[in-house]
Amino acid sequence: MVTRLQKAGHDCVVFDMSEAAMDKSVQGGSTKTSSIEDMVSKLQAPRAIWLMVPAAIVEKEVQLLKTLLSEGDIVIDGGNSYYIDDLRRSAELAPSGIEYVDVGTSGGVWGAERGYCLMIGGSDKAVTYLDPIFKSLAPGKGDIETTAGRPAGKGTAEEGYLHCGPVGAGHFVKMVHNGIEYGMMAAYAEGFNILHAANIGKKEGGKIDAETTPLRNPEHYMYDIPLPEVAEVWRRGSVVSSWLLDLTAIALLESPDLADYGGRVSDSGEGRWTLLAAIDEGVPVDVLSASVFSRFSSRGEATYANKLLSAMRFQFGGHKEGK
Amino acid sequence: MVTRLQKAGHDCVVFDMSEAAMDKSVQGGSTKTSSIEDMVSKLQAPRAIWLMVPAAIVEKEVQLLKTLLSEGDIVIDGGNSYYIDDLRRSAELAPSGIEYVDVGTSGGVWGAERGYCLMIGGSDKAVTYLDPIFKSLAPGKGDIETTAGRPAGKGTAEEGYLHCGPVGAGHFVKMVHNGIEYGMMAAYAEGFNILHAANIGKKEGGKIDAETTPLRNPEHYMYDIPLPEVAEVWRRGSVVSSWLLDLTAIALLESPDLADYGGRVSDSGEGRWTLLAAIDEGVPVDVLSASVFSRFSSRGEATYANKLLSAMRFQFGGHKEGK
Amino acid sequence: MVTRLQKAGHDCVVFDMSEAAMDKSVQGGSTKTSSIEDMVSKLQAPRAIWLMVPAAIVEKEVQLLKTLLSEGDIVIDGGNSYYIDDLRRSAELAPSGIEYVDVGTSGGVWGAERGYCLMIGGSDKAVTYLDPIFKSLAPGKGDIETTAGRPAGKGTAEEGYLHCGPVGAGHFVKMVHNGIEYGMMAAYAEGFNILHAANIGKKEGGKIDAETTPLRNPEHYMYDIPLPEVAEVWRRGSVVSSWLLDLTAIALLESPDLADYGGRVSDSGEGRWTLLAAIDEGVPVDVLSASVFSRFSSRGEATYANKLLSAMRFQFGGHKEGK
Amino acid sequence: MVTRLQKAGHDCVVFDMSEAAMDKSVQGGSTKTSSIEDMVSKLQAPRAIWLMVPAAIVEKEVQLLKTLLSEGDIVIDGGNSYYIDDLRRSAELAPSGIEYVDVGTSGGVWGAERGYCLMIGGSDKAVTYLDPIFKSLAPGKGDIETTAGRPAGKGTAEEGYLHCGPVGAGHFVKMVHNGIEYGMMAAYAEGFNILHAANIGKKEGGKIDAETTPLRNPEHYMYDIPLPEVAEVWRRGSVVSSWLLDLTAIALLESPDLADYGGRVSDSGEGRWTLLAAIDEGVPVDVLSASVFSRFSSRGEATYANKLLSAMRFQFGGHKEGK
Repeated sequence: MVTRLQKAGHDCVVFDMSEAAMDKSVQGGSTKTSSIEDMVSKLQAPRAIWLMVPAAIVEKEVQLLKTLLSEGDIVIDGGNSYYIDDLRRSAELAPSGIEYVDVGTSGGVWGAERGYCLMIGGSDKAVTYLDPIFKSLAPGKGDIETTAGRPAGKGTAEEGYLHCGPVGAGHFVKMVHNGIEYGMMAAYAEGFNILHAANIGKKEGGKIDAETTPLRNPEHYMYDIPLPEVAEVWRRGSVVSSWLLDLTAIALLESPDLADYGGRVSDSGEGRWTLLAAIDEGVPVDVLSASVFSRFSSRGEATYANKLLSAMRFQFGGHKEGK
Repeated sequence: MVTRLQKAGHDCVVFDMSEAAMDKSVQGGSTKTSSIEDMVSKLQAPRAIWLMVPAAIVEKEVQLLKTLLSEGDIVIDGGNSYYIDDLRRSAELAPSGIEYVDVGTSGGVWGAERGYCLMIGGSDKAVTYLDPIFKSLAPGKGDIETTAGRPAGKGTAEEGYLHCGPVGAGHFVKMVHNGIEYGMMAAYAEGFNILHAANIGKKEGGKIDAETTPLRNPEHYMYDIPLPEVAEVWRRGSVVSSWLLDLTAIALLESPDLADYGGRVSDSGEGRWTLLAAIDEGVPVDVLSASVFSRFSSRGEATYANKLLSAMRFQFGGHKEGK
Repeated sequence: MVTRLQKAGHDCVVFDMSEAAMDKSVQGGSTKTSSIEDMVSKLQAPRAIWLMVPAAIVEKEVQLLKTLLSEGDIVIDGGNSYYIDDLRRSAELAPSGIEYVDVGTSGGVWGAERGYCLMIGGSDKAVTYLDPIFKSLAPGKGDIETTAGRPAGKGTAEEGYLHCGPVGAGHFVKMVHNGIEYGMMAAYAEGFNILHAANIGKKEGGKIDAETTPLRNPEHYMYDIPLPEVAEVWRRGSVVSSWLLDLTAIALLESPDLADYGGRVSDSGEGRWTLLAAIDEGVPVDVLSASVFSRFSSRGEATYANKLLSAMRFQFGGHKEGK
Repeated sequence: MVTRLQKAGHDCVVFDMSEAAMDKSVQGGSTKTSSIEDMVSKLQAPRAIWLMVPAAIVEKEVQLLKTLLSEGDIVIDGGNSYYIDDLRRSAELAPSGIEYVDVGTSGGVWGAERGYCLMIGGSDKAVTYLDPIFKSLAPGKGDIETTAGRPAGKGTAEEGYLHCGPVGAGHFVKMVHNGIEYGMMAAYAEGFNILHAANIGKKEGGKIDAETTPLRNPEHYMYDIPLPEVAEVWRRGSVVSSWLLDLTAIALLESPDLADYGGRVSDSGEGRWTLLAAIDEGVPVDVLSASVFSRFSSRGEATYANKLLSAMRFQFGGHKEGK
């Protein structure tokens, strides 16, 4: 991110636990510091401090900054914090006149090159002040087609950054963004799984093993679908084309059977928090919840439940599903 | 089932691949035979032939019976056939004047003692003719409380057997019965899984491993819930009391950690067929489908999908979830 | 509940906003009071105060009792509070030496007659002291069959009440109980919906309207299933028999088409809280969540999402799904 | 489609129920005919007949063509037929030496301009013969970035068309494509619904009505999120960018509250067929099924189930949820 800011002509004062990371920034014109305290002292007021640290560290840094900063300074949390923490932290900084801005950033490891999509929460004053920063980090219009009917110059969303509302709104929108991401990923994953199993009729007349119901029509499932080519063809002109599909095409080209992966899928906080928000709001989220729960199950978290199903089956049917 | 029929005074002519099974019936007064042909020859017209064989065998037996039986005879399929097969088989037997009756039976290994709950499809004539058989197999009123408002003598449902409609209706109702059974089982299994994990806050401050989001409030999950006792207490006066809960209480009493079970859960055809019917009808079945799919997942059938999720995550985030 | 306590010989001092309710208790031997303060003053130490008020009122009452009670007294919350509130309230009362006991009660309007299933959280000391109260409120063994393999005298669960763990454990178990209840109810509801639509093939050759895919095999859906009789027959000997099914049989007997109901289903907090707990624990709850979300949807909370689906369909397909 | 073929230099002989449609093609150089029979007679052998008719009409046309065509001719079904019908039709045409090719096409109303993404099933011989046709209809590489690691000239998928396998494979892949489309659409719809309700805390302190649990923290839901701008910003650099999101941005720009839509969402056959295939294969599809079922529910198909839930609640709780 510092690289993008420097290219756009911003002066940056940096602190990082990694000397190497700072040295890289110094080559681009940044000022290196030895601690948070040192960094704060080298910035001119009003200071804008962009935190880009793991969620678990944010609290400590914000508490420290509270003691170092002055009225008119701005703390920006660009990580993946829970928006409810934004609300609390903002309230704690407010009495000292320190502004708090939360920025959800999307783009993954590709962001440095493509630019970062920024979802921003904070006061109008602070967000307006920081506008040049956001503009430099965001992708800009690029060669993406203009939305039909959109008047020229209607806000910054076309540039890839958006002031979503007061404090917390940035991380709230980013949270839901990730919830949607989980759902889309699961839609592709389930679909490719169906294509992957489309040759099931070739396997022993469809009777895979004693655990499954015999297939009534094995002749309907005799297809060896070329999965990497399907991902590729869908990239052009189909309704399901997307950036996630572009990545899927790369992944399947590298390895159609995905042999290097273990099938245990992590989930970061945002997916879960999206569900909590939906439940509070009373909004049904059958798809988003299924995509989160399938990750829990992928890590073995359904095992006790499944054992209990087997135990019930044993009790009423006498058939033991052992280890 | 023969035992229950004999106790009720019915004369039975039996054929079984197992001599031992037949011998047991002979002691109770049945006539033993050496083949299906022999069995048919030893029955007096109009014959009622009760098939109790695996679904995969029914077809062969019905085709054989078609050549052996005469007008007025009745074939009864008491197994777990797909009702759509009933419709076809019935149509094939109809030109010869042979009746076809389908009977879904519930009760598991406990049926011999408790009686079998019977869901029956077929013509009025055939089902009325067979009524004494059904009455003998069914549990009867027993000591189960009368449904409030139910007039005395209103049909046979109180006796535990029901003529549900024309051919196929018996297996249709049994199919949906099993679909509901899957859903109820999953409801208990998920609930006990939540109780089972209620002490997660005690484990390393709630941070189980790098794959999961840190628990924000470990102090909320410090409970070691006595699962077998919970199952027991719910049996008395709670809204979730049921026969499946009675079985769960037995299973958890035997082994609270269910160590003998592997967590791979089979599914028989009925659960799947229930979903197919719902999809044809356009009826939403979020719960019943989730209960079937969780069994698929328990057997590793989500693995390819999960690997693809990891592959996408690697492509946009650079984090590899290996084996 | 006072009635059950009086019958068992307990002296009760009561306060209720309703004079009529108190008068009924006085006839049974209770002492009537004019306020919470009056009630506290008329009880002998150590006092046991059983709160049975809406969740929204509990907080106010507990804060009041904190000022009125002394060391060794016990506050019992018998309502449907969130267990996380129990933890907080208990911590607030602890410095004054006041014990806090949470009791989840199940049984609905039938509890007075059948007895209440009690799930209890609190210290060993307090729960042991209150044992006679719990025993009197609970259903007792009744004529429910003993769980196979259960030794005589193994705890109180057989009596219908259970000390589940420290403060909060009672409401935690009750919360999950209600989560399971939602799942079971949805399993029955979806199953009966499939049976209800089993005659869809009779309707205009299966083509109900332009909005749905034509049915490929209308001849498979020609059944008019007698729903009240199906509920009745399943009560005897089937795997899905339960108390909820008993109630379903009553409801369908009264009105097979359920014409008096609007189809908008409320949800109390427990179903949602169950999901929150599962998400915190990382436990998949596909069935329980689907049952909660279907209630949200029944109240129109999916409407905006559905409109957006129509809007997307219009954009890529040109077909407008208007009002 | 004829327009795209003519532009690429193909001679077309056309028949359509609409004279106007044919006249437009004639202006582009096509030959007009008066009937299917006339069309067949005006084509030189080996003939390639592309059917683009509603699924319900395909059967009649194929049966007619069976009587008109000769060995070496090819019938192409470019509509949305069920792949199982392809298998049957192909088998019926095979004895006459007539080839059958199924083509799933994606692109909606935008296809004429963008080109059609084509998923093709059939024999190598027939598909190779038709390659120039497919190349002309497909979008071509366009300005879409090459998939990283993909060797130049690796098959036709980069051109936007793909021979997926033997007969039926084209419609099979298209079917799953649509299943994924449903899942993605639902992911966006649920996510925007959460954003839409993010101001729920402003409404009467969060207590919307008696039917819902009071919101514990209304202060967490005070956001008026600008939905059209969120859709726009996500189009640039975010992980959830896609063509469906582009369309969503257009729709929300036109009408943020989507007031013209009624919220009843149709489903075509492919979504349902995708579920049937997954169930046959034993592959879990929690997300894809939820997206189909939510459409069923949007059309009121959950109503009977919901009424039954209310009826059960009335039976055990005494609270009536009327009309």
